[in-house]
Amino acid sequence: MTRVYNFSAGPAALPEAVLEQAQQEMLDWHGSGMSVMEMSHRGKEFMSIAEQAEADLRSLMVIPDNYKVLFLQGGASSQFAMIPMNLVGRTGRADYFRTGSWSKKAITEGKRFGDVKVTVDSEVDGKFTSVPAADGFTVSDDAAYVHYTPNETIEGVEFPYVPDTGSVPLVADMSSTILSRPIDVAKFGLIYAGAQKNIGPAGLTIVIVRDDLVGKPIGGTPTMFNYATMADAGSMYNTPPTYGWYLAGLVFKWLQDKGGLSGMAEINERKATTLYAAIDNSGFYQNPVDPVCRSWMNVPFTLANPDLDGEFLRQAGEAGLKTLKGHRSVGGMRASIYNAMPEAGVQTLVDFMAEFERTRA
Amino acid sequence: MTRVYNFSAGPAALPEAVLEQAQQEMLDWHGSGMSVMEMSHRGKEFMSIAEQAEADLRSLMVIPDNYKVLFLQGGASSQFAMIPMNLVGRTGRADYFRTGSWSKKAITEGKRFGDVKVTVDSEVDGKFTSVPAADGFTVSDDAAYVHYTPNETIEGVEFPYVPDTGSVPLVADMSSTILSRPIDVAKFGLIYAGAQKNIGPAGLTIVIVRDDLVGKPIGGTPTMFNYATMADAGSMYNTPPTYGWYLAGLVFKWLQDKGGLSGMAEINERKATTLYAAIDNSGFYQNPVDPVCRSWMNVPFTLANPDLDGEFLRQAGEAGLKTLKGHRSVGGMRASIYNAMPEAGVQTLVDFMAEFERTRA
Repeated sequence: MTRVYNFSAGPAALPEAVLEQAQQEMLDWHGSGMSVMEMSHRGKEFMSIAEQAEADLRSLMVIPDNYKVLFLQGGASSQFAMIPMNLVGRTGRADYFRTGSWSKKAITEGKRFGDVKVTVDSEVDGKFTSVPAADGFTVSDDAAYVHYTPNETIEGVEFPYVPDTGSVPLVADMSSTILSRPIDVAKFGLIYAGAQKNIGPAGLTIVIVRDDLVGKPIGGTPTMFNYATMADAGSMYNTPPTYGWYLAGLVFKWLQDKGGLSGMAEINERKATTLYAAIDNSGFYQNPVDPVCRSWMNVPFTLANPDLDGEFLRQAGEAGLKTLKGHRSVGGMRASIYNAMPEAGVQTLVDFMAEFERTRA
Repeated sequence: MTRVYNFSAGPAALPEAVLEQAQQEMLDWHGSGMSVMEMSHRGKEFMSIAEQAEADLRSLMVIPDNYKVLFLQGGASSQFAMIPMNLVGRTGRADYFRTGSWSKKAITEGKRFGDVKVTVDSEVDGKFTSVPAADGFTVSDDAAYVHYTPNETIEGVEFPYVPDTGSVPLVADMSSTILSRPIDVAKFGLIYAGAQKNIGPAGLTIVIVRDDLVGKPIGGTPTMFNYATMADAGSMYNTPPTYGWYLAGLVFKWLQDKGGLSGMAEINERKATTLYAAIDNSGFYQNPVDPVCRSWMNVPFTLANPDLDGEFLRQAGEAGLKTLKGHRSVGGMRASIYNAMPEAGVQTLVDFMAEFERTRA
C-alpha cells in the first residue's frame, strides 16, 4: 500500500493515524463485538463516543457554556437556509459580506428568507482576491445578524481578523478553517462547518450556536431545520450521522496529541509560509491573493504557461501528489493543506514544483 | 475478536463481509492511495463508486427509467417535510395512513405544510397491531398524494399488500423494509428510506421518485429540500455523504451475491417464520400483532412476567445477543432481523429464548 499526498479541497485527506484506528476498530469497537456504525445511537456505547467527542471539541475550541454544539447533517449548504430561518426573524433583515464563491451562495439562499443587505463586496473585475480592512465596513442597525465566510475555499482568501459587529451576532461559515488555529468563540453568535475539510468525513456538519439565538424560527421552518429541535435533543431528535461523529472524535483526539489548536496553528503557518514562499520566489508560479489575506488552508496558484497545466498535473500525480487541479470556476491549481496534510507533503510539493519549473519553464 | 448478534432497530447490523471489505480498503481504495472518505466527490474514483451503487440499486429493485434515485442526507425525518414541500402543491391536500409511531410523526410534520386528511387510523386502545384490509380505505379525490408506512419499525406491523391509490401518487416510508423483498416500484410515486436499517450507515437517505413529481416545490422550500436541486445535480449539488454512499454500494453487491431481493425474501421469510413460531409455540412469549401483518423485519415480543425483562436482557447479552430491549414507547423486547442478521443469529436467539423459558418461566 502506498498512500498519496491528497490536496483535495474537500472531502479532504484525514490523518493517517485516525484512519488506522478506524480500520482497527471497524468490526469490533472496544470489545463491543460491533462496528460503531452498527450501534444504536441511544445505546451507552455510542452515547459515550458522542459525549466524548463534544467534550473534546469544547476543550479544543474553548467553547463557552452558553453555546450549544450540534452534530447535524446536510452540509454548509443546508445552513445557508437554516441560519436565516432561525435567526432572521428578530428584524427580518441581515448583513452579508460578499468575498468569494461560498459567501455568494450563502447570500443567494439568505435572500429567500429575509431582507439581505450586502455590506461588503470585494469582487473586482470578476475576481475575489482581498477582504476589507478591519474598519472597512458598517453594520446595519436593524441587522438580525452579520454573515461572513472567514476562509473562501475556492479563492484562497482568508480574513486575518474577526470582524467587530458590536452587539449584532456574527455568523461564520468556517467549513475550511475551523480547527486550523485558535479563535475566540465568544466573538461569534454562530459558527458552522461541514466536516469534510478539517473535521471528518462528509455528511456531518457542526454548528456552534449561542443559546439566545436558538428557538425563534420563522414560519414554515421544517422541524429538522429548527436548531431548537436539535439543541433540545442533544442532536438526536432523529438518528445522527453516527460514524462521522465517531471519526470527528478521533480527529479531535489527534488534534490534542498535536498540541491542540495553538500547536496546529504553528504547523499550519509553517506549511503555508513554505508554499507561498515557493510560489513567490519562483518566476513561474503565481498566487493572485493580497498577501495580508492569503489562506492558510487553500492555496490557488497558476503556471506562467497554462498550456503546461495538464503536464503539471500528470507529473504531480505520478509523484504521488493528487487532486491539485484548481476549481473549475478559477482554473490553474489549488493545494488544500488542511490540518491532516503533513509538513512532508507540502515539502514534497514545493520540491516537485521547483523541479517542474527547472525542467519545463 | 468476537462479533455479537446485534438486533438493533437502527443503526443496525451490517453484513460482516461488507465491514471486512471496508476495513481492508480503509486507507487505500483500489490502489488509489486514499480512503474513500478522502476522495473528492467530483473525482473519477468516487464518481465510479457512486454510479455503480446507483446502477446496482436500480438493478436490484428493477427501478424504471422514469424514476430518479437520490442519495441524500437528513434521514426519513427530513423527508417528513420534504415530501409535502415538494408534492402537496398540486392540490394543497394529502391523505395519510396512521398505523404506528413513524406514520404519526410523518402526519404531524405533513400538517405543517398542507391539509392532511387521516384516511386510515388503526389505533385501538392506544395500540397499533393491525392494518386495514386492501379495500378498507378510500382515496380523496383532491389528494396530491397518499402517504403510508409499509413497515412500522416500533410496532412491528407490516402491510401485506401495496395499497391501490389509483391515479393518486403513493408515497412510502420504507426505511425498515426496503430491500427485504421484491416490490413493484411502478406502483409508487415516491419511496424513501433512511439507510441505517437495511442499506448502510446512518447519515444516508435514499429517495426514489417518479420524474413528474419533481420540480413543483411550495414557496419557502429551502434549496437543499427541493428534489429538483438534487435530481438535476445527480445528488451532488453539494458534497454528498460519500462514505455512506460507498458502503451502500458494498451492501448492494452483497445482496446480489445473496440472490438479489427474491433470494433475500426467502431468507427473511424463513427467519421471521422461525422467530414467530418460537413465540407462538411458547406459553411464555407473546407478540401482539395480527398475524396477517406481522413484520418480517421487526419482531416485538413480551415476556409473560415482565419482572424478568431485565434478567432476560442480561442473560441474552452474555450469550452475545445484543440490543433486544423494546422501544421505550412499547416496552418488552424487540428483535430487528434485517437483511444483515444471519439465520444463525435468529436460531441462536430462539434457542436462547427456549432455554430461558425452561429455566425461568
